[in-house]
Amino acid sequence: MNLTNALAIAKYDHHTIHTIINSSPILHVSFHTLSPKDPFPAILPMLGFMGLYDPQNPTEESINEGANLYLHGYVSSRLMRMGKKASEEGEGSEGEEGLPMTVAASCLDGLVLALTPNNHSYNYRSAILQGYGQVVEDVDEKLWAMEKITNTVLTDRWENTRVPPTKTEMTTTQILRITPHTASAKIRRGPPHDDRHDLKDAELRNRVWTGVLPVYTVYGTPIRGEDCEIHEAGDIISFVVPQHITNFIDAKNKENKQFAIDRAGDEDES
Amino acid sequence: MNLTNALAIAKYDHHTIHTIINSSPILHVSFHTLSPKDPFPAILPMLGFMGLYDPQNPTEESINEGANLYLHGYVSSRLMRMGKKASEEGEGSEGEEGLPMTVAASCLDGLVLALTPNNHSYNYRSAILQGYGQVVEDVDEKLWAMEKITNTVLTDRWENTRVPPTKTEMTTTQILRITPHTASAKIRRGPPHDDRHDLKDAELRNRVWTGVLPVYTVYGTPIRGEDCEIHEAGDIISFVVPQHITNFIDAKNKENKQFAIDRAGDEDES
Repeated sequence: MNLTNALAIAKYDHHTIHTIINSSPILHVSFHTLSPKDPFPAILPMLGFMGLYDPQNPTEESINEGANLYLHGYVSSRLMRMGKKASEEGEGSEGEEGLPMTVAASCLDGLVLALTPNNHSYNYRSAILQGYGQVVEDVDEKLWAMEKITNTVLTDRWENTRVPPTKTEMTTTQILRITPHTASAKIRRGPPHDDRHDLKDAELRNRVWTGVLPVYTVYGTPIRGEDCEIHEAGDIISFVVPQHITNFIDAKNKENKQFAIDRAGDEDES
Repeated sequence: MNLTNALAIAKYDHHTIHTIINSSPILHVSFHTLSPKDPFPAILPMLGFMGLYDPQNPTEESINEGANLYLHGYVSSRLMRMGKKASEEGEGSEGEEGLPMTVAASCLDGLVLALTPNNHSYNYRSAILQGYGQVVEDVDEKLWAMEKITNTVLTDRWENTRVPPTKTEMTTTQILRITPHTASAKIRRGPPHDDRHDLKDAELRNRVWTGVLPVYTVYGTPIRGEDCEIHEAGDIISFVVPQHITNFIDAKNKENKQFAIDRAGDEDES
């Protein structure tokens, strides 16, 4: 029952790593606290995405080489204060300025059920990225990142809300850009693999079911907020869930389910 | 769009924290690497659970005060080697022996969609536990932890496989017990909360749908492994998915969906 076993394949290409990070709704961000007496690294759950900001062409999307990790936070949080301080101090050689941070993203795709507990595993994708965090000061890049983070959570949501942000919203929000230093992914897919001596045991094979339970994330029926109502000529009319939301739910639910099923097979099968 | 905002409530009771950890199929474990030149903390995705081991009554389950976090790994992994070394060195005062580690568990319960990107959020549960990791040397405690980890992934799976583990399986598997030093949880639930000036804007409210998209984990239809077949009198008979698996799928899918829906409401509503 292990995620670091030999059957997980390590990957180092940008597209694989960045796709895992952008598929993960919660990122875990770790960093050293400033207190020299604190033996524990800090971890925070955060929202973020990988993307390449091109001021000449901000609508162009790229998750390939050169992409950075953008994290969203409040200006008053400890991490953002530390990021700001590290940016200002500008320590380290070129490409190494900022706060050293490690970010993890993991997605579970299935339970792998074998003849023995020892050969049980998960089908999963996991990415670890280490890099240097700096506060984004450029207003255009900051706005671009805010839009991308919102639309990573729910496709087309940004343009279907009240934008642009107010001055206060811009001031209280801080975006941290992490320039990758190293990154890698681990992926496990496929059916269980049992040991030869267990597979030879007919009684055992007749008794223990083996295979994969696909696991995936589902978006349920939207639940309207109490403030959500359309007023027309003094009457309150019910607010039909708009198409950008229903499209997202339909597409994601279909995609997530099929992905988990495909991952139960070996690479050449799908 | 933030997970550290003021609407997330901090909790410090053992039951809440331990339940989040045991509901999270993947834990993120962070620790300092031994290399003094490495500015990045390590993070690993791992399997684990919170439990209280009572040698007098090993079947008794408790996730209340006194529970420890048990992590599962291979004896040859870097973390397990470091844990072993720290256990042997026995540094620190009582209760502080072992490798300092920080463990994070996060579960997403819903997308919270507000009038503005700034007030968007997640309904979620997140726990952070800091403690000292030591290798479990006691064979009974180790076996107990191995059984509990397997059954945390899939209820009753341990007893429906080939157990006990072989000598080799016991040697290659290592269990790390983390004694908690500090722990806390953050929880956000309920509908979106918008700013007064946006709520007063009739055009905006007629245009932007607000509410919660429940998000939950689903276990799909089991996919039989190629080695999974019952032989009877020379014939291969198809292997019906056993009840401990179908029961688990039915119970979890119902429970996860209802939980996410309940979390879309305020605390007093469910």
